[in-house]
Amino acid sequence: MNVTKFAIPEVIFGQDCLAYVGPCARRNGGKRILLVSDQGVEEAGWVEKVIDALDDEGLSWVYYNTVDSNPRDFQIRRGAKFYQLQRADVIVALGGGSPMDTAKGIALIASNGGEIRDYEGANRIQRPLPPMLCIPTTAGSGADISQFAIITDVERQVKMAIISRTLVPNITLIDPTFLQSKPEWLIIASAIDALSHAVEAYVSSISSPFTEMNSLKAIETIVTNLEAAVTTRSSRSLTQLSTASTVAGMAFSNAGLGVDHAIAHSLGGKHDVMHGLVHPTLLPAVMRFNLPACEQKMAVIGELITGQKGSDERETGLMGIAELENFFNLFAIPHRLRDLVPDAQGLPEVCKLAVQDACVLTNPRPVTWEDCLQICEEVW
Amino acid sequence: MNVTKFAIPEVIFGQDCLAYVGPCARRNGGKRILLVSDQGVEEAGWVEKVIDALDDEGLSWVYYNTVDSNPRDFQIRRGAKFYQLQRADVIVALGGGSPMDTAKGIALIASNGGEIRDYEGANRIQRPLPPMLCIPTTAGSGADISQFAIITDVERQVKMAIISRTLVPNITLIDPTFLQSKPEWLIIASAIDALSHAVEAYVSSISSPFTEMNSLKAIETIVTNLEAAVTTRSSRSLTQLSTASTVAGMAFSNAGLGVDHAIAHSLGGKHDVMHGLVHPTLLPAVMRFNLPACEQKMAVIGELITGQKGSDERETGLMGIAELENFFNLFAIPHRLRDLVPDAQGLPEVCKLAVQDACVLTNPRPVTWEDCLQICEEVW
Repeated sequence: MNVTKFAIPEVIFGQDCLAYVGPCARRNGGKRILLVSDQGVEEAGWVEKVIDALDDEGLSWVYYNTVDSNPRDFQIRRGAKFYQLQRADVIVALGGGSPMDTAKGIALIASNGGEIRDYEGANRIQRPLPPMLCIPTTAGSGADISQFAIITDVERQVKMAIISRTLVPNITLIDPTFLQSKPEWLIIASAIDALSHAVEAYVSSISSPFTEMNSLKAIETIVTNLEAAVTTRSSRSLTQLSTASTVAGMAFSNAGLGVDHAIAHSLGGKHDVMHGLVHPTLLPAVMRFNLPACEQKMAVIGELITGQKGSDERETGLMGIAELENFFNLFAIPHRLRDLVPDAQGLPEVCKLAVQDACVLTNPRPVTWEDCLQICEEVW
Repeated sequence: MNVTKFAIPEVIFGQDCLAYVGPCARRNGGKRILLVSDQGVEEAGWVEKVIDALDDEGLSWVYYNTVDSNPRDFQIRRGAKFYQLQRADVIVALGGGSPMDTAKGIALIASNGGEIRDYEGANRIQRPLPPMLCIPTTAGSGADISQFAIITDVERQVKMAIISRTLVPNITLIDPTFLQSKPEWLIIASAIDALSHAVEAYVSSISSPFTEMNSLKAIETIVTNLEAAVTTRSSRSLTQLSTASTVAGMAFSNAGLGVDHAIAHSLGGKHDVMHGLVHPTLLPAVMRFNLPACEQKMAVIGELITGQKGSDERETGLMGIAELENFFNLFAIPHRLRDLVPDAQGLPEVCKLAVQDACVLTNPRPVTWEDCLQICEEVW
């Protein structure tokens, strides 16, 4: 038996749970808060709400919003300097995956020094980080739960995966009603990102009963609720998506991911592709590639999605993958790689970088860059 | 929508994970460790193993073993004084629920002062506790996961439930192979304790998707594996029991318990009954009492246990309860309350104390002491 580890932040979940941010920051020792967010979140009025909540608690704060989708190394460097100059002591991240990953990068560099690329890969952080609270406004990235931070190395055009238990935030405050005002494509892309987290974590070579349970819950919940969430925006269905994203985060943070995410990171670094839109294209092809290495698990997913069993595990697995493709086809999103990437010429380079991504380490089947290229060509 | 909270310790799970105790104590700031255990655990040789592991890490330590099954308030007082006199900084608990609850009580009094009875009930702890690591040697109490500590007030003959997020240990190190040398009755009693945690948390009035998932996983796993674990002691089945106990702990710690535990605590305070042996007697009767308030959830449990559906939810629920009784009857343990308690005369007093226990607050159906008495008489 191998030793398995399972670490998650404290979760506070529900409408208006934002109100807890002040007391939570205080009980983590906060006196001067660095709030990290971005322009989109400002425009929605949520930055102001968090600032009001910090004011209500009598906490002082400073604000950092130099955040891009796919956050860049120099934005981290600048944020860490700002944190230090301002003598902040607790970091609050508000937004989607990008502000949260930016906040993690800032926490890392402000406390451990050096450059973000020094920490690429697994378990390279030595010293403790300042306390971090996350308030996710999308339901997908899992950054508020996970020990991952994904930061782009601008010079190398690489999205680096930094993985360490110390990157797990202290507390995540999840209000599903944030989703009500989100555009349709963002809800879909985020939910499918969460779905891909759940699937890759489930078949991961280091999954455990703790992560597997969370994976299956997320897969079932997203497949059952995404369509209704997009069309009705009902409180019930949005709550389901937020729950699913949260438990998918618990799964992948502790079980790791696989080739789908390795290629997605590599594509994101090279072409600045919106991360969540890559999976509907890549995931089924990656699942077919992985099938021989994990037929039993793919059959569990297949039966969960289709409610049916094939003549053997392989067939049940294939039925599940086909049903997942049908599911993705319900939504008005890109379905071929050529809709996302300008040309196919860069694909070999993308694939050579992908196999260096930390996510391939937990893929159930060994993978070469040529395998990755074949996957990309299959879905081109 | 209500705000729900979910907090668990970092989990390290697997054979020989004891080896992590030194580094874990150190990264929580430990230099001088208070190790809390009991004589049974000493005799099994495990105290020595933990001491060796602390020595290997170069940590100094002191040892406290004034621990009874059903730990007493004066043992806590004495332990807290010992902690302070010895200038310890991290507490490591090794054993079943009793050493772990003792360690929690010591951590509480050493840091917050006063008497343990000052903290009876929910959310009465103001100041942070010293870091706590738990190494459970049974699979049932969930004390290594939970925000509960159960301590007996000797003067009042009451088992007090103290409930606070700050009682969640920092890390739990779970090695399922500890179970291999346990007597049969202890494995059974512990597993049925975990099963009752899972059932009561599932129907609790403050359950959430996060706790419900963990409850169902625990119920299914214990019902499927307990017989094999007792007869074969196979590594696989013992691992299943440890997993089930852990996820049941995640459920009840965050969802609370109910009338079964309220009566069990009250019986334990009055008659020093072994906690795990009370549930096979009480749980089915409590489930029947609660059924009208949670038919839908009882039907989910019923279908999970029997694999069948009745003509309506109520019937499916009743089928599950009957099947649970059959399951308990497989084991050579007491099945009537009269086998556990010397006489029925004290029952009214037991029941009047039970309705003051914090666990009744989350019971799905309101309960009077007369209801409790009827439940006790039904199973006498």
